[in-house]
Amino acid sequence: MRRASGAAELQSRAVTLPFGVGAFGWDGVAATAYKQSHGAGRGMGWRGVSRHPLAAPPGAAFELRYFEIAPGGYSSLERHRHVHVVVAVRGRGRALVGRAVVELAPLDVVQTPPFAPHRWVNDGEEPFGFLCTVDARRDRPQPLSDAEWEALAADPRTAPFVH
Amino acid sequence: MRRASGAAELQSRAVTLPFGVGAFGWDGVAATAYKQSHGAGRGMGWRGVSRHPLAAPPGAAFELRYFEIAPGGYSSLERHRHVHVVVAVRGRGRALVGRAVVELAPLDVVQTPPFAPHRWVNDGEEPFGFLCTVDARRDRPQPLSDAEWEALAADPRTAPFVH
Repeated sequence: MRRASGAAELQSRAVTLPFGVGAFGWDGVAATAYKQSHGAGRGMGWRGVSRHPLAAPPGAAFELRYFEIAPGGYSSLERHRHVHVVVAVRGRGRALVGRAVVELAPLDVVQTPPFAPHRWVNDGEEPFGFLCTVDARRDRPQPLSDAEWEALAADPRTAPFVH
Repeated sequence: MRRASGAAELQSRAVTLPFGVGAFGWDGVAATAYKQSHGAGRGMGWRGVSRHPLAAPPGAAFELRYFEIAPGGYSSLERHRHVHVVVAVRGRGRALVGRAVVELAPLDVVQTPPFAPHRWVNDGEEPFGFLCTVDARRDRPQPLSDAEWEALAADPRTAPFVH
């Protein structure tokens, strides 16, 4: 039995995204290309990355996305003021964050601090997927400086991420 | 070989939280009580909930927490202006969100809209855990209005969440 008085005050919408049955994805969420326009800057190349927008609630200061990188794929090598908070949820991968190389397995959490160069890489044989939260209002990614690029290219640990 | 010139420009910190080996948790993250002071308001009771702060990056507009609810446990029944974006990651659970009852399995995503009454419940036999992102600046939870409470208590689907 509906009671109009109380019901009128209740927010009735639970915004739900059921996780897919049989496929790794969310009902009603279309995966898009990683970047519509990634520019021609140094390091801006990427391969095999899909972007799944999961939540951008009106009035909230953040957005949640899921990114998936196919085997052999990688995101662009970039820097920006806004931070990423990443939680790995599928497969395994690696990341360059600043001067560090980070291994990622499910539920590992990684933050990219302001202006830290970063690139996500899947050199395994299964898809690598992670949740990524960012500020809704954020600056655009930019290429690395000459000094950053040269320092990372000169270090044998980080050189494989610099291309 | 370190190159001081480039290195000085590089942000060197990757803030990492490796997910635990053997235990469900993160190295260096201490679980705390769900709420230090939950007040005496109607519905503010809770049971078996732990809170794991995962990320509150300086300068970012959001925070990421992990909550885990033991079998038989439940969070407080509350409302507030700020939204939650929840991603289930461990076990199964249920939620009251507004007037809806939502079933949650791993990687299901649920948003609680502004002022929607909500409560997370674990009536299963395994721990139920979820990631929850919120605005860093947010209002305090408040009890339901009389009309909300009565409407939810009068509906047999939602009545089990109202106590």
